[in-house]
Amino acid sequence: MAKFSQEIEVSGHLIDSSILTKIFDKIMDLHGEFQVEEINIGKKKKDPSYARLSITGKNQKHLDEILETVYREGAVSKIQKGISLKKAPKDMVMPDDFYSTTNNHTQVFHNDEWIQVENMMMDKCILVKDNRAFCVPVRDVKKGDEIIVGENGIKITPPERPREGVNVFEFMGSSSSSERPTQHIAKKVAEDIYKTKKSGGKIVIVGGPAIVHTGAADAVAELIKLGYIDGVLAGNALAVHDIEYATLGTSLGMNVHDATLAYRGHRNHMDTINAVFRAGSIVNMVKSKKLTRGIMYQCVKNKIPFVLAGSIRDDGPLPDVITDVAVAQKEYKKILKDANMVIMISTMLHSIATGNMLPANVKVIVIDINQPTVTKLMDRGTWQALGIVTDVGAFLPMVVQQIKKRK
Amino acid sequence: MAKFSQEIEVSGHLIDSSILTKIFDKIMDLHGEFQVEEINIGKKKKDPSYARLSITGKNQKHLDEILETVYREGAVSKIQKGISLKKAPKDMVMPDDFYSTTNNHTQVFHNDEWIQVENMMMDKCILVKDNRAFCVPVRDVKKGDEIIVGENGIKITPPERPREGVNVFEFMGSSSSSERPTQHIAKKVAEDIYKTKKSGGKIVIVGGPAIVHTGAADAVAELIKLGYIDGVLAGNALAVHDIEYATLGTSLGMNVHDATLAYRGHRNHMDTINAVFRAGSIVNMVKSKKLTRGIMYQCVKNKIPFVLAGSIRDDGPLPDVITDVAVAQKEYKKILKDANMVIMISTMLHSIATGNMLPANVKVIVIDINQPTVTKLMDRGTWQALGIVTDVGAFLPMVVQQIKKRK
Amino acid sequence: MAKFSQEIEVSGHLIDSSILTKIFDKIMDLHGEFQVEEINIGKKKKDPSYARLSITGKNQKHLDEILETVYREGAVSKIQKGISLKKAPKDMVMPDDFYSTTNNHTQVFHNDEWIQVENMMMDKCILVKDNRAFCVPVRDVKKGDEIIVGENGIKITPPERPREGVNVFEFMGSSSSSERPTQHIAKKVAEDIYKTKKSGGKIVIVGGPAIVHTGAADAVAELIKLGYIDGVLAGNALAVHDIEYATLGTSLGMNVHDATLAYRGHRNHMDTINAVFRAGSIVNMVKSKKLTRGIMYQCVKNKIPFVLAGSIRDDGPLPDVITDVAVAQKEYKKILKDANMVIMISTMLHSIATGNMLPANVKVIVIDINQPTVTKLMDRGTWQALGIVTDVGAFLPMVVQQIKKRK
Amino acid sequence: MAKFSQEIEVSGHLIDSSILTKIFDKIMDLHGEFQVEEINIGKKKKDPSYARLSITGKNQKHLDEILETVYREGAVSKIQKGISLKKAPKDMVMPDDFYSTTNNHTQVFHNDEWIQVENMMMDKCILVKDNRAFCVPVRDVKKGDEIIVGENGIKITPPERPREGVNVFEFMGSSSSSERPTQHIAKKVAEDIYKTKKSGGKIVIVGGPAIVHTGAADAVAELIKLGYIDGVLAGNALAVHDIEYATLGTSLGMNVHDATLAYRGHRNHMDTINAVFRAGSIVNMVKSKKLTRGIMYQCVKNKIPFVLAGSIRDDGPLPDVITDVAVAQKEYKKILKDANMVIMISTMLHSIATGNMLPANVKVIVIDINQPTVTKLMDRGTWQALGIVTDVGAFLPMVVQQIKKRK
Repeated sequence: MAKFSQEIEVSGHLIDSSILTKIFDKIMDLHGEFQVEEINIGKKKKDPSYARLSITGKNQKHLDEILETVYREGAVSKIQKGISLKKAPKDMVMPDDFYSTTNNHTQVFHNDEWIQVENMMMDKCILVKDNRAFCVPVRDVKKGDEIIVGENGIKITPPERPREGVNVFEFMGSSSSSERPTQHIAKKVAEDIYKTKKSGGKIVIVGGPAIVHTGAADAVAELIKLGYIDGVLAGNALAVHDIEYATLGTSLGMNVHDATLAYRGHRNHMDTINAVFRAGSIVNMVKSKKLTRGIMYQCVKNKIPFVLAGSIRDDGPLPDVITDVAVAQKEYKKILKDANMVIMISTMLHSIATGNMLPANVKVIVIDINQPTVTKLMDRGTWQALGIVTDVGAFLPMVVQQIKKRK
Repeated sequence: MAKFSQEIEVSGHLIDSSILTKIFDKIMDLHGEFQVEEINIGKKKKDPSYARLSITGKNQKHLDEILETVYREGAVSKIQKGISLKKAPKDMVMPDDFYSTTNNHTQVFHNDEWIQVENMMMDKCILVKDNRAFCVPVRDVKKGDEIIVGENGIKITPPERPREGVNVFEFMGSSSSSERPTQHIAKKVAEDIYKTKKSGGKIVIVGGPAIVHTGAADAVAELIKLGYIDGVLAGNALAVHDIEYATLGTSLGMNVHDATLAYRGHRNHMDTINAVFRAGSIVNMVKSKKLTRGIMYQCVKNKIPFVLAGSIRDDGPLPDVITDVAVAQKEYKKILKDANMVIMISTMLHSIATGNMLPANVKVIVIDINQPTVTKLMDRGTWQALGIVTDVGAFLPMVVQQIKKRK
Repeated sequence: MAKFSQEIEVSGHLIDSSILTKIFDKIMDLHGEFQVEEINIGKKKKDPSYARLSITGKNQKHLDEILETVYREGAVSKIQKGISLKKAPKDMVMPDDFYSTTNNHTQVFHNDEWIQVENMMMDKCILVKDNRAFCVPVRDVKKGDEIIVGENGIKITPPERPREGVNVFEFMGSSSSSERPTQHIAKKVAEDIYKTKKSGGKIVIVGGPAIVHTGAADAVAELIKLGYIDGVLAGNALAVHDIEYATLGTSLGMNVHDATLAYRGHRNHMDTINAVFRAGSIVNMVKSKKLTRGIMYQCVKNKIPFVLAGSIRDDGPLPDVITDVAVAQKEYKKILKDANMVIMISTMLHSIATGNMLPANVKVIVIDINQPTVTKLMDRGTWQALGIVTDVGAFLPMVVQQIKKRK
Repeated sequence: MAKFSQEIEVSGHLIDSSILTKIFDKIMDLHGEFQVEEINIGKKKKDPSYARLSITGKNQKHLDEILETVYREGAVSKIQKGISLKKAPKDMVMPDDFYSTTNNHTQVFHNDEWIQVENMMMDKCILVKDNRAFCVPVRDVKKGDEIIVGENGIKITPPERPREGVNVFEFMGSSSSSERPTQHIAKKVAEDIYKTKKSGGKIVIVGGPAIVHTGAADAVAELIKLGYIDGVLAGNALAVHDIEYATLGTSLGMNVHDATLAYRGHRNHMDTINAVFRAGSIVNMVKSKKLTRGIMYQCVKNKIPFVLAGSIRDDGPLPDVITDVAVAQKEYKKILKDANMVIMISTMLHSIATGNMLPANVKVIVIDINQPTVTKLMDRGTWQALGIVTDVGAFLPMVVQQIKKRK
């Protein structure tokens, strides 16, 4: 073995999930050398594989670079070192060299045992306390918190490619395309929602105002009413448009049922905002029977939690909107906790925000008419993410129709 | 009156159709001067208006520039000169200074009378023969043909904004947007197709292979079967995909009814092409009962003419494809003659080709999921063009469903 | 005159700016009748025009609908009524039937004189106090405030089409296209920035992180350094990426100067955020010489105000970010006050936000590679808005090069 | 070993190039079973690997399905059978069950030896004659030709991931994005063109008219003049716009150097077409000194072959355009023979056409401002394809500037 060498191990569905390919890639990208010391490919498809490689760098620094990189792909050092901890110097300041997280399932080696990191998210640090490890954002760091630094003692498990069960994710891989049989895709999505729910899964919708413009608000409201949805994440616009449509029949002044312009329709948007302010809140509007249909109504009536995050472009915004985005992020995370499926509809802003908060193993469906938006959202995705380039105004009603057939 | 001045007249719905605005714009853009000598605005909405302007340029050349420009917007000289003619020097060569056409209704002043130009299209020349005037493309010009040169003696009538009757063109203007209530738009389009047909109109479809990929082939076949379509313009790909779907159930190897990949499905595309070559033609396939459903089948069965224009990217192409594009253009024009409505679906190439062949008063509906495509096609459009950014796989089935309700 | 008729007047560049066309349109769209009682078209291009119409509705309600609609297009009633005022019933609640503003220059008729409304913005209400009128958002309304209700006594002046002077807005109209000679467009934009500044104008940039990704950060920093920019409006991402690039040379871990991936580059984003938290603020980083180049540095050094508005998708966000969007909106408005030109670069969110805050007469340039984004932003625009579909990484350096040539 | 089992072998850079991953995927997708009988992973990065698998299906048909599928990924049967041949029943008709090609390097086992297939392209059949094998399109098949049927005796070698040498393909993988440092990408592309040429490579440009609209025609002409380009593939539009710009300074009537509209500029497009018809051909225009600059001029002057393929949307088309697309395809293929790099600029039609004609190992660079276009073109790509979403009007001049620096 050369001077600047180290052995690493990796196990799991190495080939099926491309893990070994990625590790080899990374080593070569960094101009390192490697030898495969031992390899054991599962003889049947469910058997796990094991590989032991010896990696060689030009010098210690080079070797460390390579090692840190392959650790992030799921490799672990043969001789496992424990994590290093350093205290946060101030509130909201991480120690230098803090370990920056991925969104993959992560364990840390501390006091000679592997501990699972809780609340896993991307681009955060890891706080260790009372033999537990937590993924925390910089603003939640308190002076003196013990934060992991460096890359030692960390084991990442990349998500494995799903194989079993018939679901929409299986037949399309992670690609997005507008050239797919739409009616069938709608059927598959319906099936997947149905099965996820039937097996006790938690489904969260993230949505933008195009749901209302394109005439799909009734479909989404129906999904909530039927009990398929466990949380709604949105901004001010979805709520305002939904309530405008529910109370006045228009979306930005256009009659949704026939696409004509309503008289003084330009006022309807602001009138709606004023109506919610007059009631004091959306919940109050429902209580006082001023709001009797639509997405927000169904949320209130069926006690489905919703979070409206403020944005700089908001009109109003409604009293229910959390105008402080740092607070809104916390509320989003509460809704997303333990979600099994997240359906993102026509909103880049809230979809990216939600994506940042999700561990890699949550199923994500992205539906939007703009292909670059879908591509952007899918870039972070793995096998469990599905992009559908379609017209939500036509697609969502189809999905609901299919779900109702199954009931 | 200044030395380099001339009076022009213009009449029609000057203000409603923005004609006067455009004339004023053009004069100012060219840094000319003008005085409104007389103006007569129709007192009621159906009354035509009349205006007489005196235009002044810096010199004769400048004045001529301005005049030629405003003539193209519908103005005519107060003292009308006749057209000038020059002989084509060779086959397929127009004389210098030939008049290059617009796609607007055009009359020419010849032998002291106004003659209407036939077969109006954009960017062509005008041939005068036996007191008739024809719009002809350069390749059809024969040596010695009398071609109009210069800009004198030509009167253009821009299309007027439609007002009466309830149709889909009225409520949306010429704008295109993905933020419209899709289900209602589908209803309006259905209404418009229904009424156009009921009143004896001619409807032509221009379509691309995404019709099949997205699962809308059955809807288009149904429209043809129901008698709403009078011609189909396409390329090789639509026909191949349609026949692959009709005979093997797949589109590029993917089963359209459930989006799974067929075994050896990659062959289906080429197998289909081979099957048509074996039969000799699409018509033969129908006769020998090898082709019993789909868009091409309905065309053959219902004697609806179709033209398949070749393109450099064709696989095959099928024996039915006209591989010479100059010939294909002529065949396209035959189908388009006297069309009242053209529905362009998911094909930029054939849609632009068709657009170039249409006079400005034909209603055009453009349906595509890619907004820039729709925008590009609409750029040439006037009030009678309508862009719909949607997923054809979801939209067309809705349209057909709505039409069947009306029957 | 019929029973349900009323006379209206309108004056200005009626035809050149299409005002008359729009008024006729609106009447006809609402199925009203009209007669042109008097019309006086300016004989020369700078002369204003005048028209007096009598409008007839089917009943009083119908007539009122038509009148309110045409008032919004610039018409005024012949017999001018004063505005009506009603007290706000609660904090943050407008009275029923409040007048909802446009973004056009607006005057109100109160105590027999015309008062100009201050801080004009779209979709707000108008507060009258001490013979002054203010445009205020719903959240700023206090119980008892006198708010205009109904549509009487309001005069709107739509922006006129710019004619004089050679600027980039003149030659392109309000269209956006990717098929323009890019190098020349860059020259024209440079010219326009130069002239606006030379004549004492105020220029504000609204920008997204793609400025940094695409390698245009140096160009923007240079523009600020050269004194052309009077304010920067952005979100967390632009600042983080700019500081990452300025301090570490990377953007999301990619070395901007050669597009390679930096070692442990994934950390750089979070490291940058941590560095700002450690310093306490961006200003402190500059003071302590930790930040010595880039967009944010040039802002601090040249005392150019910047506002970073928080959004739900922020990492961090930086201590300088205003996480409460309602507060951020107020700060944005302060920067935008009296701006003559706003340049929006690669950020839909902040650009739409800014657009909502601007009166219609401010010049807006929108630069983005995604055509639907540009189209969406331009939809609200009038003649003074210009959309450029290009790659900012190539375009902005060209603009700066051109400006430096002029100096 | 089970009854319906067979052993296959595969060798090469199995893991680095994901070949093994793809084979495992395919078997599992088809619900087959497999055991890894032997595996030998190259211990160093350049060492080839070898694997022997035994595959088991539910029945013979199932097993055959799996085998045929994995053969297409590079696997070969342990006991190699020879190919089967069948005679073509008619001109332009392939025998049933013909083998449909991929675009990968392919060998066939015939008379106990492996023969390499010539003129490799996708979706064609393979003709065997005199112990040579040729990839031929259906229209070139003659009655009696010996065509390969079934899937036996065929060995495919997927392209390997390039590792050595510093080129633009290496650092970006096959992804396309508009969020890259444009100026650096331009430098890398320049480097790659320079090196390809220096090492005696053949470079072909495929281009659309946006090259001229966006002001990049001078850059492309310069590239040809400098000797970097060995062939130009385009349609009518590029030639017409280039010659309009070269002779009249405009593109569709707009002055390219300052983006103003030329007087009677709408005629320039047709005037240009007429001028070429008058001269008889583009070559004649150059000879008679009517054409003295631009892309087409540089082609003629430097004897760089160009092919203009007709399309249904052509104006004219020019006498030089090959209006029969079947003929044009053959001419395209001649130019593409042995090309090492193909640069596709702003033309979906001709780029897809060219892509269909290329073997998988040719480097392809796709440059377009429309992301869906780039994505669509890249879908067929492997590691050697590179998509750049940028504004060609800004990007190409940068590339040329960089190349000139290197000279």
